[in-house]
Amino acid sequence: AGDAAAGKSKAAVCAACHGQNGIAQIPTYPNLAGQNEQYLVMALKAYKNKQRTGGQAAIMQGQAANLSDQDIADLAAYYASLPAGGK
Amino acid sequence: AGDAAAGKSKAAVCAACHGQNGIAQIPTYPNLAGQNEQYLVMALKAYKNKQRTGGQAAIMQGQAANLSDQDIADLAAYYASLPAGGK
Repeated sequence: AGDAAAGKSKAAVCAACHGQNGIAQIPTYPNLAGQNEQYLVMALKAYKNKQRTGGQAAIMQGQAANLSDQDIADLAAYYASLPAGGK
Repeated sequence: AGDAAAGKSKAAVCAACHGQNGIAQIPTYPNLAGQNEQYLVMALKAYKNKQRTGGQAAIMQGQAANLSDQDIADLAAYYASLPAGGK
């Protein structure tokens, strides 16, 4: 299972686009705060496996390429734990 | 530009999985409430163009296949307008 505290420590690079609080500062990127954990795992694995293309997907393919299953679980747990809307 | 009111009327089928308030009842599906409008447009177009595969993407490929650009804009405006977290 994912460890939200471990995920937080792994999320520094994510924050550049998805925000320190999981609210994206760039409107073409998704907010992640409060998103469903299982969905985040699926989405990260799909990027890692290059199953998502188009739009900004190439960026996430690169970001996800070196994530382990544990990294993905931890990051998903972390973002799911943040309050939706960043409040 | 998207029309949130028109989007609401087009969103009935979406609510089956993504919730009446944009909060998914199924943990493998994403919450949409308060998501960035431009991201939602990109994601829907990627599903329509079959650029997203893996996970539950086949379901969304089917759902998006018959959406026009205006439908996509309206749906994105509607879900972006809903309060994050469903509150």
